[in-house]
Amino acid sequence: VPQDRIPGQEARTKVAAIQMNPAFGEPKVNLARTCDLIDEAAARGAEIIVLPELCVSGYVFNTRREVAALSEPIPQGPSVTAWSDLAQRRGIYIVGGVCEREGENYYNSAALVGPRGHIGTYRKTHLFFEEKMFFEPGNLGFPVFRLPMGNIGVLICYDLRFPEPARILTLKGVDLICSPTNWVAMFNTRLWDDSGFCMANYIVMGSAAVNQVFFACADRVGVERGVQFLGASTITGPSGWPIAGPGSKDQEEIILAEINLSDARRAKAKNEFNHTLADRRIDLYDHMLGYSE
Amino acid sequence: VPQDRIPGQEARTKVAAIQMNPAFGEPKVNLARTCDLIDEAAARGAEIIVLPELCVSGYVFNTRREVAALSEPIPQGPSVTAWSDLAQRRGIYIVGGVCEREGENYYNSAALVGPRGHIGTYRKTHLFFEEKMFFEPGNLGFPVFRLPMGNIGVLICYDLRFPEPARILTLKGVDLICSPTNWVAMFNTRLWDDSGFCMANYIVMGSAAVNQVFFACADRVGVERGVQFLGASTITGPSGWPIAGPGSKDQEEIILAEINLSDARRAKAKNEFNHTLADRRIDLYDHMLGYSE
Repeated sequence: VPQDRIPGQEARTKVAAIQMNPAFGEPKVNLARTCDLIDEAAARGAEIIVLPELCVSGYVFNTRREVAALSEPIPQGPSVTAWSDLAQRRGIYIVGGVCEREGENYYNSAALVGPRGHIGTYRKTHLFFEEKMFFEPGNLGFPVFRLPMGNIGVLICYDLRFPEPARILTLKGVDLICSPTNWVAMFNTRLWDDSGFCMANYIVMGSAAVNQVFFACADRVGVERGVQFLGASTITGPSGWPIAGPGSKDQEEIILAEINLSDARRAKAKNEFNHTLADRRIDLYDHMLGYSE
Repeated sequence: VPQDRIPGQEARTKVAAIQMNPAFGEPKVNLARTCDLIDEAAARGAEIIVLPELCVSGYVFNTRREVAALSEPIPQGPSVTAWSDLAQRRGIYIVGGVCEREGENYYNSAALVGPRGHIGTYRKTHLFFEEKMFFEPGNLGFPVFRLPMGNIGVLICYDLRFPEPARILTLKGVDLICSPTNWVAMFNTRLWDDSGFCMANYIVMGSAAVNQVFFACADRVGVERGVQFLGASTITGPSGWPIAGPGSKDQEEIILAEINLSDARRAKAKNEFNHTLADRRIDLYDHMLGYSE
């Protein structure tokens, strides 16, 4: 047992956010690359590994036909099959972005696999920009998956720009929000600050702090069809402060942190007067659901 | 007209967050100090001025009797009377923290006054630590006040640590959230980072970004009965990036920024596909109101 483990807090889990640079329209190359990076992260002790959004297909689609050609069913498709094999062999959990096909519908999804194969799927609920041309909005709600080390949920990129999804996951008991992302430069006035953080990092820090949950955000890097991605993958703790990262702006890398997922529960009891879930004023929150008084 | 004004965006407003160090139990001294600082901010062009939480009474009460002695009715009490006089004389708007007495109940409140006197009151809805011993939880909801330059709302300190209040104000059309605060050191693992920001600043940046609204946070400084306050007052824009501040950790100062409150509305239309209020998945948000499925 390493010296830095606090007594009573031995139930630690290594979490990895994999920052990578997929090549558009090269699913076999990209899938092989995800497996190499998963292997490397697992060799470094990672038990929960997060891959970026649409990391096998690429992101910047021009036509629905391209989406069709690069999509795959979950769990039968090649990505989830390969990740399940790895997860079983390594005894790990993987959350990875998948361009999902179900019948004639396409979803910007993330699959969760573990030692016993496919566990569940999240379909991005808030679609950004031209995603609305190609994908259906997610119709599976905000599921929370109960793993041996804690409860995890998934949000994808633009989902993070709404306060509701992370809050709903929190109310459902999530400890760690795994976020496959493709943070884009476009529409941002300022890409990174002097600390190497982009605005999405600060949104995540704020959300981690108000919900007292962990986040593992795996972003992609590179430029695809003129669209630049921001990197800056992070792992953030329930106090809101980052634990690992930000990753670089343009290089592939693995962001790794050892955490105790139960800290997300302890953090909610602030002091003898305040538990942040009990302090909610649900008597005043009915306005949350719409515009009307 | 200064060179940096964009054509069509001349409707600018100077906003000031006043960072000050009240002395506990010295309401006359403190009130005079607020008036001096308001005068200085107004002389520098401020039209909307925010003062810290409980800036006339002080914050660290030991007994309900102390609260009673340092409380005042709104609008008849000395603070709102003095601020109203100043607002009328200067043609400005002031949001200031008041230890409010109504009958036998006490509230941690903020009063809004303008050129025609008292406009409205917000009572802190989420009470922190020993505030629960002395104050009633706010019972006036989350009002939005329609000023000539835009719509403003008020949140006080711990209210910011919940995603719901700012979201509700946003759904009610707020452009600028004025926040009198007393950010305390206690219960924080890390007080400020190398950029001089505390976690509350990042929570506000994240909230500004997901709601596309301005924030003006006026924090206090100093140590009162052993409790340290963090300063770092800021004015934050609807992109999430700070516009002015952070104020220092321990000195009184005026944080000033010239903004166009309508930018909070423009920022919500991200591109031809995305308006962030229209993109909300209210079909999936019913979980927001409680714990049940």
